[in-house]
Amino acid sequence: MSDAQRISNGADYLESLRGRDLKVYLLGERVEHPVEHPIIRPSINAMAATYELAVEEPELATAWSPLIGDRVNRFTHVTTCAEDVVLQNRMQRRLGQLTGTCFQRCVGMDAFNSLYSVTHEIDQRHGTDYHRRLVEFIRLVQRGNLVVGGAMTDPKGDRGAGPSGQQDPDLYLRVVERRADGLVLRGAKAHQTGCINSHWIVVMPTIRLRPEDRDWAVVAAIPVDDPGLSFICGRQSCDTRSAEGGEIDAGNARFAGQEALIIVDDVFVPWERIFMDGETEFAAPLVERFTAYHRRSYVCKTGVGDVLIGAAAAIAELNGCGRASHVRDKLVEMTHLNETIYAAGMAASHESIRRPAGNWEPHDLLANVCKHNVTRFPYELARLAQDLAGGLLATCPSERDLASPATGPLLEKYLVGRPGATAEQRMRFVRLIENLTLGRNAVGYLVESLHGAGSPQAQRIQIARQMELEAKVAMARRLAGIRDGDGG
Amino acid sequence: MSDAQRISNGADYLESLRGRDLKVYLLGERVEHPVEHPIIRPSINAMAATYELAVEEPELATAWSPLIGDRVNRFTHVTTCAEDVVLQNRMQRRLGQLTGTCFQRCVGMDAFNSLYSVTHEIDQRHGTDYHRRLVEFIRLVQRGNLVVGGAMTDPKGDRGAGPSGQQDPDLYLRVVERRADGLVLRGAKAHQTGCINSHWIVVMPTIRLRPEDRDWAVVAAIPVDDPGLSFICGRQSCDTRSAEGGEIDAGNARFAGQEALIIVDDVFVPWERIFMDGETEFAAPLVERFTAYHRRSYVCKTGVGDVLIGAAAAIAELNGCGRASHVRDKLVEMTHLNETIYAAGMAASHESIRRPAGNWEPHDLLANVCKHNVTRFPYELARLAQDLAGGLLATCPSERDLASPATGPLLEKYLVGRPGATAEQRMRFVRLIENLTLGRNAVGYLVESLHGAGSPQAQRIQIARQMELEAKVAMARRLAGIRDGDGG
Amino acid sequence: MSDAQRISNGADYLESLRGRDLKVYLLGERVEHPVEHPIIRPSINAMAATYELAVEEPELATAWSPLIGDRVNRFTHVTTCAEDVVLQNRMQRRLGQLTGTCFQRCVGMDAFNSLYSVTHEIDQRHGTDYHRRLVEFIRLVQRGNLVVGGAMTDPKGDRGAGPSGQQDPDLYLRVVERRADGLVLRGAKAHQTGCINSHWIVVMPTIRLRPEDRDWAVVAAIPVDDPGLSFICGRQSCDTRSAEGGEIDAGNARFAGQEALIIVDDVFVPWERIFMDGETEFAAPLVERFTAYHRRSYVCKTGVGDVLIGAAAAIAELNGCGRASHVRDKLVEMTHLNETIYAAGMAASHESIRRPAGNWEPHDLLANVCKHNVTRFPYELARLAQDLAGGLLATCPSERDLASPATGPLLEKYLVGRPGATAEQRMRFVRLIENLTLGRNAVGYLVESLHGAGSPQAQRIQIARQMELEAKVAMARRLAGIRDGDGG
Amino acid sequence: MSDAQRISNGADYLESLRGRDLKVYLLGERVEHPVEHPIIRPSINAMAATYELAVEEPELATAWSPLIGDRVNRFTHVTTCAEDVVLQNRMQRRLGQLTGTCFQRCVGMDAFNSLYSVTHEIDQRHGTDYHRRLVEFIRLVQRGNLVVGGAMTDPKGDRGAGPSGQQDPDLYLRVVERRADGLVLRGAKAHQTGCINSHWIVVMPTIRLRPEDRDWAVVAAIPVDDPGLSFICGRQSCDTRSAEGGEIDAGNARFAGQEALIIVDDVFVPWERIFMDGETEFAAPLVERFTAYHRRSYVCKTGVGDVLIGAAAAIAELNGCGRASHVRDKLVEMTHLNETIYAAGMAASHESIRRPAGNWEPHDLLANVCKHNVTRFPYELARLAQDLAGGLLATCPSERDLASPATGPLLEKYLVGRPGATAEQRMRFVRLIENLTLGRNAVGYLVESLHGAGSPQAQRIQIARQMELEAKVAMARRLAGIRDGDGG
Repeated sequence: MSDAQRISNGADYLESLRGRDLKVYLLGERVEHPVEHPIIRPSINAMAATYELAVEEPELATAWSPLIGDRVNRFTHVTTCAEDVVLQNRMQRRLGQLTGTCFQRCVGMDAFNSLYSVTHEIDQRHGTDYHRRLVEFIRLVQRGNLVVGGAMTDPKGDRGAGPSGQQDPDLYLRVVERRADGLVLRGAKAHQTGCINSHWIVVMPTIRLRPEDRDWAVVAAIPVDDPGLSFICGRQSCDTRSAEGGEIDAGNARFAGQEALIIVDDVFVPWERIFMDGETEFAAPLVERFTAYHRRSYVCKTGVGDVLIGAAAAIAELNGCGRASHVRDKLVEMTHLNETIYAAGMAASHESIRRPAGNWEPHDLLANVCKHNVTRFPYELARLAQDLAGGLLATCPSERDLASPATGPLLEKYLVGRPGATAEQRMRFVRLIENLTLGRNAVGYLVESLHGAGSPQAQRIQIARQMELEAKVAMARRLAGIRDGDGG
Repeated sequence: MSDAQRISNGADYLESLRGRDLKVYLLGERVEHPVEHPIIRPSINAMAATYELAVEEPELATAWSPLIGDRVNRFTHVTTCAEDVVLQNRMQRRLGQLTGTCFQRCVGMDAFNSLYSVTHEIDQRHGTDYHRRLVEFIRLVQRGNLVVGGAMTDPKGDRGAGPSGQQDPDLYLRVVERRADGLVLRGAKAHQTGCINSHWIVVMPTIRLRPEDRDWAVVAAIPVDDPGLSFICGRQSCDTRSAEGGEIDAGNARFAGQEALIIVDDVFVPWERIFMDGETEFAAPLVERFTAYHRRSYVCKTGVGDVLIGAAAAIAELNGCGRASHVRDKLVEMTHLNETIYAAGMAASHESIRRPAGNWEPHDLLANVCKHNVTRFPYELARLAQDLAGGLLATCPSERDLASPATGPLLEKYLVGRPGATAEQRMRFVRLIENLTLGRNAVGYLVESLHGAGSPQAQRIQIARQMELEAKVAMARRLAGIRDGDGG
Repeated sequence: MSDAQRISNGADYLESLRGRDLKVYLLGERVEHPVEHPIIRPSINAMAATYELAVEEPELATAWSPLIGDRVNRFTHVTTCAEDVVLQNRMQRRLGQLTGTCFQRCVGMDAFNSLYSVTHEIDQRHGTDYHRRLVEFIRLVQRGNLVVGGAMTDPKGDRGAGPSGQQDPDLYLRVVERRADGLVLRGAKAHQTGCINSHWIVVMPTIRLRPEDRDWAVVAAIPVDDPGLSFICGRQSCDTRSAEGGEIDAGNARFAGQEALIIVDDVFVPWERIFMDGETEFAAPLVERFTAYHRRSYVCKTGVGDVLIGAAAAIAELNGCGRASHVRDKLVEMTHLNETIYAAGMAASHESIRRPAGNWEPHDLLANVCKHNVTRFPYELARLAQDLAGGLLATCPSERDLASPATGPLLEKYLVGRPGATAEQRMRFVRLIENLTLGRNAVGYLVESLHGAGSPQAQRIQIARQMELEAKVAMARRLAGIRDGDGG
Repeated sequence: MSDAQRISNGADYLESLRGRDLKVYLLGERVEHPVEHPIIRPSINAMAATYELAVEEPELATAWSPLIGDRVNRFTHVTTCAEDVVLQNRMQRRLGQLTGTCFQRCVGMDAFNSLYSVTHEIDQRHGTDYHRRLVEFIRLVQRGNLVVGGAMTDPKGDRGAGPSGQQDPDLYLRVVERRADGLVLRGAKAHQTGCINSHWIVVMPTIRLRPEDRDWAVVAAIPVDDPGLSFICGRQSCDTRSAEGGEIDAGNARFAGQEALIIVDDVFVPWERIFMDGETEFAAPLVERFTAYHRRSYVCKTGVGDVLIGAAAAIAELNGCGRASHVRDKLVEMTHLNETIYAAGMAASHESIRRPAGNWEPHDLLANVCKHNVTRFPYELARLAQDLAGGLLATCPSERDLASPATGPLLEKYLVGRPGATAEQRMRFVRLIENLTLGRNAVGYLVESLHGAGSPQAQRIQIARQMELEAKVAMARRLAGIRDGDGG
């Protein structure tokens, strides 16, 4: 790929998304130009920030890739040392601070890295050719600086049954036809973060599979503009405020996340883009490795938490109570919780292990611990921020009221804070806190923190698997003075 | 007042609100017909439920009032025994269950009841005539079955300064002119729950006042259609969904809360409607008694919590995991927290004391404990409900997508749950949970739970005042064997 | 029974315990004179406080009993109205404040009250004579002002199996012989609070029984000095400090709790003292009613909590930081949690229902909620008290060091606090906090708070039974707009 | 120093402590032979484990020291890279697992490392010679493999006043005489972990000092057998059980912690052992750096937590409920909390920075976050362990009862668990859990976790200093759309 085709910055990236004939649906309508759509655009801006950061802070957001012998955007990079894993976390926190939302490019990064070792191990066992194909695909992505969405979550239907136990076999994405030149896939991927603004998606199994689930054990890369794909965007709290034309009420006018349901309607994928086909025993390792990366990728939420702490401190100060001891104490508590999340992510990354394929993977138990804290602490941060915001959070009039000759002067008179603090300033911070705790980015900061990369119970299962009770019981037996051979 | 003028049910009530020339502003526009406005109407429906319940369950929602010698809506009733206070709580929980939102009629009830004893005591000390005036006003309200909004919260400006310390004296509502026939008032009341759908508002001071704050020590009843009043409605998360024309995406299509900023622009109030004027030393008792009632009125949130628990149980069951032990355990935890709130409210009401004026008032410390739990537990209930809702909460397409020929069949295929659970059913419960935890009624269930009737720190101050440390230190001294007279 | 035989006060009570030939074992030795034993005596003192309170505050600690037509100690009283149930809670909190420990007389009170209705209902169904026998027994107890221990918990052996599934059938107390004049019982009762200082014990089944468990479905009253009983006292943290001869290091030198394992070795009980025999279907109601009373009896812990709050406030003040905002805030938090427990207990008692037998029984769900909070909040109170105590809690030298000429002056010099605060004062409060959070009374304040009246999971099961999910789902369905007949 | 003098293992170490004429007081008596004293010995055993581990796992517990060109015990090592800091944490967790208590050697290690950079910086500013002296002292310690106690905490008297504000100036350790050959010191150090079993102590200031506090700005190394030192041991919960002669009731018969009050009675220290004298402005950096090391050293508690988790799992299994879902879930929660602590410590260590002196120091904010979690989570782990232990924790008879012919067979019959689980096994685990949560090692696991290395409020102050509110407010301003120069 020539440099001319390489995406160099945010503007290039936006251009790369234009003119694609995607089947995108939002609020019951087909969206012809997603880049220009006011509700979708903020999610594209967030992704664009991953390109801009690589320009502005290349040490942080790019890496030297031995695969193509060049610096690449870190989101396309396969880790070559523990420090690479750590730097992902630093970059994620920074982007959380810059966008205040989910910037959507981690899933692909984490998918590459987990597939890198899994394909290597499938090949070792089965003599297959997946790893080489994957490496070729990664080179293409690195050279083009492309966005790849990792698509893992199937619709699942009845949670009490597995893929082959559903009334409709399509409720987990599967192979419906095996052809000489490739596979035909059918199904859907749900809750897909950042796909309309991607160039490729990689579909992967979502759960441990049994031998009878062979048709569901497939990994494949599909170009986003494949005509067999449809994208039905999810509604987000307060989504239509982005289309109202103002800039205050949205809270964060520039940035937002994006989630869609992807329909895969008998899409053909050539062998060169197939990275698993039927090796059911590798579904569980793939899921576990992906989640080891991805659960600690939620360190991004500490960047969003930084914004929330800043907004809470700002509104308290504007209200004239920035020095109150209980206000300071709440900001300390928010910081403590936020850094507790960060610490677990960083510990997981620092404690990375090297896989035989050569890539580095975070510490699984600590990564789960990180994510499990993410399912709890942002809610308490949100509660504390709402506390510091004051009642105006619930009752703030609209920016149109502020602009209106009838009501604007009244708001300017009555919504002031401490001397010098204007109504507009207070409204802007209150709206940002609303955005992060109830509004459009609460979807990312709260609900996605719960369910993304696996719901809380998924982490508990994984923690249970790794809690090494036998070793701990042995420690206790020794100190309790119970001798070996004693059955207790 | 003839029976013809008495509001007998919800339909009467709606009719009573029509044709009033209120200055109501919403989203930058003057609203000519609030009853017919799709965003405002749900909040009127919620208030109407207080009339309907009185018809359907009169034992619960009416009481016999000695003031007029007739049964009256309990929301207009002055408590005559502890059981009356307890029944308020039972009624509040029931209405929370029926509406899933704030039904907005408690503030007036709590204002009456606290003013009842405070005016009595002012008269005792100062020889004033406030109590008789108040009783006359209550009779008018009871006979008409009217809605009265209690308006306490001033805009406050710089929280570091009091009424007389603000750059603009109007930041706390005040007397700007004393005339032979009454007072002229100026200022605003913020965060006003349910005022556009009220018939009267009663303004009251919001904080402890000092002698120099005399002009701010005023209590007065003002008809809502006084031409000097303006109402600027607050935006709520997802408010415009109520105007989209569907019924699923709103989550709770029929019911919502309402908060507005009331501007009081040199409104004249005749003496007969003045219940305090300058008795600054009674501002603190009024606030404390009002909050004793109102902090335990937040038992209503346990009714909303019941709806949330029900919705969480329903969606888990539709997903096919209703029997999972962790799901059951989360429902138990939600119930436990919800009932802990309820218990504290009920204990406060059962432990009511009789004021010399004859009315009964809840136990102050326990009422504060109730409200303080309300500032915490609904957030955990919300988190657990979002956990049980699953990722669809963040990504659910719109009802228009479900109705669209292009996408409807895809959603019906891919968003099913356990056998028999349709996409629409799942969408409806997910939207209801969104409504209660992120959307329009999250404003009431979460933010209002934090700040209504006083922010968390206000309860901590009140708990501190009543924690009787000296008595507790004496108990400890005795058991520690420290003798009296020993200075420790 | 003549008045001469009635126990009138604490001194009488102590005398009533002397000269009994009980088989009491402690620390591997038979204890001949339990009343005089320095480790056992504090637990007898605590029980004696229930007699003293009846003298000092008769309105609180006595009641008029229609059974004998006289005032009786409230601990022997069968509730005749909701207020009686509420007054139990008030008395329990007061005794917790006075003793700082478990005063051990509630189990019998709660056993009587639950048996009162259950025996009535067995008689209704089976034509038995249990209720009359029980009433006669209660009269005897009331006339003599006796202490009755309610003994419910069987040793249980394998928790994965029931009574008839154990390798050793004696692991649940059972009937081993049916004679014409009565029954012979064998087994043990574990974790028995206050039995050595009782006059009678009433044994009861501990779990739901099935038809095959008939021999285990027995309720009987046994005099404590029956020669077939043995009592093996449990060790408590720091128990031997009570025998060291000083008064500081014990923390609370006068009062403590008591727990023992009771062995029932083929004890004969005449029919007149048998209140259930084989009616297995009534075991579950008995357990549920007993725990409804007893779980809310844990309100006593709020009295102990008051002592702990007082001690924490005192030590902080002696340290010179009583005014620090974080210290005040921690005391507020302790109070808030303590009152939250109290509120749930009081709500359960106020919301009592009348059983057909005529006695009043607390609200089951709220009683469970009360106890469930007891399994959590005292731990946080303990943590906060230890925080306020400062590091001296971990490192305080002994009172003998204070008395020693070699070290006493050094401690008096270096362990002072704020001006006027002596080393001894600080040591006394630190030891009291140690007593309540790590030492002898931590057994009652923490471990018993967890496991007494059922471990946390037992409350969760009971809450689950009463959480009325169907009704709550119906509320949610209605607001979500799902029509009846729609299967979701 | 010849190898003959070097302490090579635990036995050598014990020998090194014998025959010293220390003034040690315990329970009011002078202790002539601390090594042989049954209450003191377990704390010496714990320290000995630090020698044994160096023999058994040299990679973990030794390091190559450039200061003497040899491998040294890691506890005497000055960090030369971030990995050295990380390895301290790994070693600490391992020793926590092996001893189930505080092994007391970290304070000296952390004192060395913080003094290493601080002395370097004092010398840079003032041209003093402290760093060379310190290095010489460290060489002596490394060559001899000696134990050094870092003594920081002064008695403090009135917490509302600083050193020069106390009524008695000795309440903070100070210089009372400056001589040509050195300094004379007077005062005390409180809460001193592991001093009787040390060879040297290093005294250091405990708080930020002002210019007028010059006499209190002193750092000095003093041999433990200096005749001017006295040691008054603190009592610990259940301490005398170690002297009862058995091995079950102590819970952990071999290992315990140790805390004492050290009296420094006009001790002369030659200049060569003085590392700070009057440079008040360096007191705060010394405290901050020491606490940066030491707050993350509390990772040791995760090793103790591992033992507690193991004991809880073991007793639940013996009780026959090891497979119950709520039991598994509680073990998962314990693990999650334990690993959250570990993660923050490890993150702090991995994120170490290099000081100009050449040593590496952990990330200050993350170290504080680690310790702050240590002040919370062990309490919840303890609560959960007590939950899993069952009621026997509160009522377990003594080991003498088990050994007694009268009661032993009864206990063996009635205290069995699931088939094969004997009474003794259950008693041993219950006692270990008691030891860790109420007994002797609860002092270390709970109280020391609260107060060691600074009480919770100390961490909050440090977190407040580092929370970078301005930067976070700027992030929020940017996303809220507030332009630079706008004063809000």
